[in-house]
Amino acid sequence: MSDEVEHVKCLIIGSGPAGYTAAIYTARADLKPVLYKGFLAGGQLINTTDVDNYPGYPDGVMGSEMMNNFHKQAERMGADLRDGFISKVDFSQRPYRVIANEEKTLLADSIIISTGAAPKWLGLESEQKYAGCGVSACATCDGFFFKGEDVAIVGAGDTAAEEAIHLAGLSKKVYMLVRKSEFKASKAMVHRLQALPNIDVMFNVEVKEVVGNGIAVDGVRIFNSVTMEESKLPVTGFFVAIGHQPNTAIFKEWIDMDESGYIKTIGRSTKTNKPGIFCCGDAQDPVYRQAVTAAGSGCMAALDCERHLSGIEHTENTK
Amino acid sequence: MSDEVEHVKCLIIGSGPAGYTAAIYTARADLKPVLYKGFLAGGQLINTTDVDNYPGYPDGVMGSEMMNNFHKQAERMGADLRDGFISKVDFSQRPYRVIANEEKTLLADSIIISTGAAPKWLGLESEQKYAGCGVSACATCDGFFFKGEDVAIVGAGDTAAEEAIHLAGLSKKVYMLVRKSEFKASKAMVHRLQALPNIDVMFNVEVKEVVGNGIAVDGVRIFNSVTMEESKLPVTGFFVAIGHQPNTAIFKEWIDMDESGYIKTIGRSTKTNKPGIFCCGDAQDPVYRQAVTAAGSGCMAALDCERHLSGIEHTENTK
Repeated sequence: MSDEVEHVKCLIIGSGPAGYTAAIYTARADLKPVLYKGFLAGGQLINTTDVDNYPGYPDGVMGSEMMNNFHKQAERMGADLRDGFISKVDFSQRPYRVIANEEKTLLADSIIISTGAAPKWLGLESEQKYAGCGVSACATCDGFFFKGEDVAIVGAGDTAAEEAIHLAGLSKKVYMLVRKSEFKASKAMVHRLQALPNIDVMFNVEVKEVVGNGIAVDGVRIFNSVTMEESKLPVTGFFVAIGHQPNTAIFKEWIDMDESGYIKTIGRSTKTNKPGIFCCGDAQDPVYRQAVTAAGSGCMAALDCERHLSGIEHTENTK
Repeated sequence: MSDEVEHVKCLIIGSGPAGYTAAIYTARADLKPVLYKGFLAGGQLINTTDVDNYPGYPDGVMGSEMMNNFHKQAERMGADLRDGFISKVDFSQRPYRVIANEEKTLLADSIIISTGAAPKWLGLESEQKYAGCGVSACATCDGFFFKGEDVAIVGAGDTAAEEAIHLAGLSKKVYMLVRKSEFKASKAMVHRLQALPNIDVMFNVEVKEVVGNGIAVDGVRIFNSVTMEESKLPVTGFFVAIGHQPNTAIFKEWIDMDESGYIKTIGRSTKTNKPGIFCCGDAQDPVYRQAVTAAGSGCMAALDCERHLSGIEHTENTK
């Protein structure tokens, strides 16, 4: 453990659209932000191919190129963007204490949490092989690429049901694959699903493998655990909708979150239960989870943070 | 008045970042959105020059170019983007009835309001002459361009005070020009202001003219209504912070709004008091008012709208 302690005005944790946008705004406001990129620099978009729906790129953009642009922009504004991760935090008193890379201590007057969330995967090798080339964890993002085609989606909860309904509006046929013999989704959602003629719900189904020609998906191999039969569904798109895990474990002791680990923010703001700590992006959003909503909330966190620090400066200045 | 009545699934009113983003998302979800651009196609950004803080453009972008990109992207997704404006609405029953261009009747299953807001100006010819070249209505957006320089800001309310504090963190000196003999801002804000040594508050001051060399601002000519003296302040930036007017007058009879005309949305969603009518962007946001927050909320409105229409389709399908 290094003895050196660094005092920063504004610490940003995470480097997806939310974190970089917070960096752009706080740097422009001269808060001299320090951003730690985390384990996956650039966030979830680094693992996607085409991003079609982030406004500003009329012909779409590669996820990695887009995040590279965000990085460059934050850098140009003067943000201090660092490789590495925050491994431990102590929010018991101000300035807040964090450990970076398991060795360096920082004291932060304010913190913006933008650590994102990670989609859960089935754990198949073939699923990772075709990720971004037919396999997706976001129907809202990628469903459009399979317009008029046949797709499968695996999942049983409300989000899976909602994504299946979204896909049904675009695709010819949607196979919804449920591992158990019933839904976890609410009755209302199940009713909506069942009203759509092009959704075929299959219960007791395990996905064994995503198959294709090495470049594109042409089917999924499934196993019915009741009939014990194996078969292949001819689909070009395969969506995994078995949930997300917000990357918020290290904050659990200090920051209010819901039972899934999504950080709670106050009212329509990005404020958490700790003064001077803000949260934006997927770490606080189980509902919309889009690049542009994350970016928007990153801007909000930066403005909330700037306002908060102005208040503090006043208090300190008038002591 | 034309007899023809057009039935649309999703009508978007307004063409700033919020409206175009809603169009991108609803078009990708195959809701076949029809968007009316309104009186100022492209919204407020059309009147700005450099946009430095919209994430995705590492070197900045011209406001008009950025909105042109948004337009192209929505068009590529299949949105029906129309010149013209909505002149009258009747939200008493569904489908909702609107009149476009004072002649055409549309019936809409759902509506996304993204009509934005307009900054208030002093009404000086010179102010418009230098708009985007030293004169700005958004310190958060443009303050950064005047780092280390001297600027003036006119206004007396909380927003003006907040923008002055933002400028004080960037500029060498900030003249805050108040027309009357006291602030409208809250006492807390005034205390914050007064604690900052580089803000010089001047009361009883009227701005007579923005002066410059025809390309850039080099001062403002002011008149003190108590001493009756005229003088020139040497500044390179002039900020007008006397308020915004949300463009929501035609909805007043039907949609809940606050006393300033900002539309109220429910919880953290974009839902208004009328089912199937959503609001995003500056028309509902007196707090953040940035291009990226508007775009984020446009995406949210599109997703809220899609979810709502899926519900309706279920109800209709199961009657």
